[in-house]
Amino acid sequence: MRLPVPLSGVVPPLCTPLTPTGAVDDRSLAALVEHVLGAGAHAVFALGTSGEAAHLSDAQRRAVLRAVVAAVGGRVPVLAGVIDMSTARVLDHARAAADLGADALVATAPFYAGTHPAEVADHFRRIRAAVGLPVVAYDIPSHTHTKLDAPTLLALAEDGTLAGLKDSSGDLGALRRLLVALRARGLDRTFAVLTGSELTVDAALLAGAHGVVPGLGNVDPAGYVRLYGHARAGRWEDAAGEQDRLAGLFALVDAGGVGEISGGAAAVGGFKAALGLLGVIECAATAAPQGALSAESVAVVRRLLVEGGLL
Amino acid sequence: MRLPVPLSGVVPPLCTPLTPTGAVDDRSLAALVEHVLGAGAHAVFALGTSGEAAHLSDAQRRAVLRAVVAAVGGRVPVLAGVIDMSTARVLDHARAAADLGADALVATAPFYAGTHPAEVADHFRRIRAAVGLPVVAYDIPSHTHTKLDAPTLLALAEDGTLAGLKDSSGDLGALRRLLVALRARGLDRTFAVLTGSELTVDAALLAGAHGVVPGLGNVDPAGYVRLYGHARAGRWEDAAGEQDRLAGLFALVDAGGVGEISGGAAAVGGFKAALGLLGVIECAATAAPQGALSAESVAVVRRLLVEGGLL
Amino acid sequence: MRLPVPLSGVVPPLCTPLTPTGAVDDRSLAALVEHVLGAGAHAVFALGTSGEAAHLSDAQRRAVLRAVVAAVGGRVPVLAGVIDMSTARVLDHARAAADLGADALVATAPFYAGTHPAEVADHFRRIRAAVGLPVVAYDIPSHTHTKLDAPTLLALAEDGTLAGLKDSSGDLGALRRLLVALRARGLDRTFAVLTGSELTVDAALLAGAHGVVPGLGNVDPAGYVRLYGHARAGRWEDAAGEQDRLAGLFALVDAGGVGEISGGAAAVGGFKAALGLLGVIECAATAAPQGALSAESVAVVRRLLVEGGLL
Amino acid sequence: MRLPVPLSGVVPPLCTPLTPTGAVDDRSLAALVEHVLGAGAHAVFALGTSGEAAHLSDAQRRAVLRAVVAAVGGRVPVLAGVIDMSTARVLDHARAAADLGADALVATAPFYAGTHPAEVADHFRRIRAAVGLPVVAYDIPSHTHTKLDAPTLLALAEDGTLAGLKDSSGDLGALRRLLVALRARGLDRTFAVLTGSELTVDAALLAGAHGVVPGLGNVDPAGYVRLYGHARAGRWEDAAGEQDRLAGLFALVDAGGVGEISGGAAAVGGFKAALGLLGVIECAATAAPQGALSAESVAVVRRLLVEGGLL
Repeated sequence: MRLPVPLSGVVPPLCTPLTPTGAVDDRSLAALVEHVLGAGAHAVFALGTSGEAAHLSDAQRRAVLRAVVAAVGGRVPVLAGVIDMSTARVLDHARAAADLGADALVATAPFYAGTHPAEVADHFRRIRAAVGLPVVAYDIPSHTHTKLDAPTLLALAEDGTLAGLKDSSGDLGALRRLLVALRARGLDRTFAVLTGSELTVDAALLAGAHGVVPGLGNVDPAGYVRLYGHARAGRWEDAAGEQDRLAGLFALVDAGGVGEISGGAAAVGGFKAALGLLGVIECAATAAPQGALSAESVAVVRRLLVEGGLL
Repeated sequence: MRLPVPLSGVVPPLCTPLTPTGAVDDRSLAALVEHVLGAGAHAVFALGTSGEAAHLSDAQRRAVLRAVVAAVGGRVPVLAGVIDMSTARVLDHARAAADLGADALVATAPFYAGTHPAEVADHFRRIRAAVGLPVVAYDIPSHTHTKLDAPTLLALAEDGTLAGLKDSSGDLGALRRLLVALRARGLDRTFAVLTGSELTVDAALLAGAHGVVPGLGNVDPAGYVRLYGHARAGRWEDAAGEQDRLAGLFALVDAGGVGEISGGAAAVGGFKAALGLLGVIECAATAAPQGALSAESVAVVRRLLVEGGLL
Repeated sequence: MRLPVPLSGVVPPLCTPLTPTGAVDDRSLAALVEHVLGAGAHAVFALGTSGEAAHLSDAQRRAVLRAVVAAVGGRVPVLAGVIDMSTARVLDHARAAADLGADALVATAPFYAGTHPAEVADHFRRIRAAVGLPVVAYDIPSHTHTKLDAPTLLALAEDGTLAGLKDSSGDLGALRRLLVALRARGLDRTFAVLTGSELTVDAALLAGAHGVVPGLGNVDPAGYVRLYGHARAGRWEDAAGEQDRLAGLFALVDAGGVGEISGGAAAVGGFKAALGLLGVIECAATAAPQGALSAESVAVVRRLLVEGGLL
Repeated sequence: MRLPVPLSGVVPPLCTPLTPTGAVDDRSLAALVEHVLGAGAHAVFALGTSGEAAHLSDAQRRAVLRAVVAAVGGRVPVLAGVIDMSTARVLDHARAAADLGADALVATAPFYAGTHPAEVADHFRRIRAAVGLPVVAYDIPSHTHTKLDAPTLLALAEDGTLAGLKDSSGDLGALRRLLVALRARGLDRTFAVLTGSELTVDAALLAGAHGVVPGLGNVDPAGYVRLYGHARAGRWEDAAGEQDRLAGLFALVDAGGVGEISGGAAAVGGFKAALGLLGVIECAATAAPQGALSAESVAVVRRLLVEGGLL
């Protein structure tokens, strides 16, 4: 299906359920799709950071996208992450995603090797030119160690290279300046700004963002849909109240943060533990070499779900 | 005067006008105080980062504080920055500030040498114990290279060490989690959360912050007072509109950002150039060794003031 | 062929010559292999950072390795880079490298997503277990944003997971502490420490390193072989003199460093421009989206080759 | 006394012994001076990072310098650190140091606020112009978050602003490129390059550095004097052997590195614990707010002294 112009609303970056032996669990993935669509999500994003794209083989990536496209069945757009180190590799993912039925691509700046903004712009232009799908830029400097700057984004919005931005930079000040600049050029009508910062969605929407891509939206999609609805209706204090509740729930990303585990593994592990406890997915395992949550950590997740009214 | 509990509203971090030979310009400083108080500022903060505290000698710091206390004349509280590398040096500044009539102290974590959170907590406790003034923690990791973490801040709020936080970290997600945690403990009634991020004040207030310490509030204090008023009255879209206008004006921090000048010098130089063009201060010079804005840069500042409706 | 235990000597990380249309240029790659083997290189390393592994598709990586293995023809060991974001993807590269005839694997820590040292150790253990080839750890925190720590490396040396380390961290102090610790355990007889820092090879050898993997060794392999020979013979001041000459030549990595080009592209572009001027490879193009050296930059490269006695 | 041109040899950055109540302990400081001069140190450096300059009040800094100048009594040059946030403040320290009899000044780039290289150069030129003492630049980006770049250093060496460099950047590759460039301009005869990296002194001397400023030289000055002697005599493998022994001893900086203590406090605390155990100073306390070494940590320090042949 065609991506709305501009894309808006709640777009959960789907977790990738795995079996105990590490295979993609299609059935749980389909259940997760129902979980978020049933709550009113406006699109889904497969193979993002929450989807452990970094940890999946190419074959697993294809399996995930195939399963998501099948499960969604055209009800909402499917955005496909094509995260990789540089242009040639991203192009391979992009062609595969197009073949598998994705409706749009989500690509980061190149990483591992450093980049110049002109090289970043060239990267996105080559992706757009090679594959007939809208391209959303994914700004995640904590992972790519490059911040997409406003002049580059404005140029790529203006010339039609990019259909939007998923901003996971955490820099809401820069995002506001970008939104003001987009509106001054009339580009906010075609270029979608989506925040990936789960804890400041009310703020991003108040500043004019079109939507949100919340990792925590795997666990509580209904909360984000309510938050979005409050914001669209101008009920800002209700939006803030819902955001506060979600900020409390967000503590589940820290539940596993003791022991021999990275912060990212703890976060995704927390989401998956919650999805397991909620009965959405069968197995909460994360991909190797990520550490696993301890039983104590899972107990904290359970408590947070109860406190957040989800269990 | 006693600091309100909790401190709230618009608290401009005053620039330090200098004469062409680099001395503190008391008359311009007094005029700047009138500029912000006339616009309705609720307190003033002397000797912060916008006040070029890093670039002033101890004698100049005392001169600034003396002039500000005199100019304010008890109409609003005066917060005094006591920014320095470590505890012993901060204590010297703190005692001087108390002697000169400051109403509260604003202190960062130690810097230059690294720190452990327990050492940071000890640092703030020693300041609080030594001087009979409320202490506000100043979180500015871009300058100190230490982020004040939530457990430390909550402990120091709980035991009365800190009267508040000036958050210049730019991390609104962390700020929201802190606000939720403060409210859960009832500490939001005594501990003031002030954002130092000029571009997301509407967002911080929506999230429950008590006020704002905006560098740009030197130039347009009335804008921030209006923004604050809208927020307090629940007119969130008006607040966002005002914030958008201020975000456009904020471009003056970049006006000088070409040539042989640091980002910080360009920002403070932009504020001072604007204050000069508005007729508030006499000389826009910044302290050595900071580079100066070119004539072209000053012309950009002028254009931005016109576009922002200030000139 | 079996990797020597421990591996030692000069191991150039081969550039990947490309045709003007971006295909792997087998003939130039074979000529580059002759260039370095003719100079006395003790092994070669394909698909490292200098080999633009980050910018090559999987098919191109396989083409490179196939061409290198064929060109080397068993005269020296071929190490194959298997650089990728995480374990599953590295395993795919590792199996391909084994099939294509590589003699050892060179793997970084996972990147993009963060890691915990225990996860890094698990990553290397899984690679070692899955493929019957020696594994060399590649420490390049400028690119992976993880520093391999000494306790992890010592554990992986001790249990036989790792056959060595390519240290491109630039932290010679840490390297010395590691070397002292390896010797104290007798592990220096089986675990090879290779420095990737082109400018401190004399120092690393004096500290006990076994060899060097110099990007600049593409251009001047004979210089590094001489340096290595001086060091092995205890002629330390001759080694330092040769190192000084190479440090002057190293300026070619900066030749392209103006204009719209990243530092990495300028470095590899400088190596390739030099190889083109020396008549070793046909085309100096780098892979997209990297910027190209200007004619002025190439003229600087030419001058440096003349000054360095290579042209 | 006049600083040798260029300064060379072993220049311990003196620790600052404190009494249990935190006052500068003149007697222990004098004993420490004898400890290092008795071992053959060629100069001393007061008020550096190892001297806890960041943690001392202005009055304490003056007390330290007064005591060191008195204890040295003209036997070797006394370098005085004038570490502070920016030019005006450094100038105050510089004038005080000149009054107290220092023979040279050691100044970092400005910190807390960011800098542009042109501002850094202006900073050093203002210090040199204001005070009639040689100025040594102190490059310590781990603390200042600015790396002094080669073009700036070469310009300041060429125009006589700087008498030398204390390089604590840990970047021996950059140091080598600087040394090569200095020699190409004949500046190595007037501009002293001193490494502050305790673990690569042999390497820095082999590359042409003039001397070393080793924090660990507080504990084992004789070891560094031997290392320096071996290097000057061309006994490079003996130098490396001595360096290896010192690298083992250096583990005492990590002895305290568990518990609620920063890395810097653990390092200085380790030096001071060792000096206490060796009977050089009376009390091993560090300045507030730094955490203290536990009894277990002190036991590790003792073991390392025994293993290193010092106890």
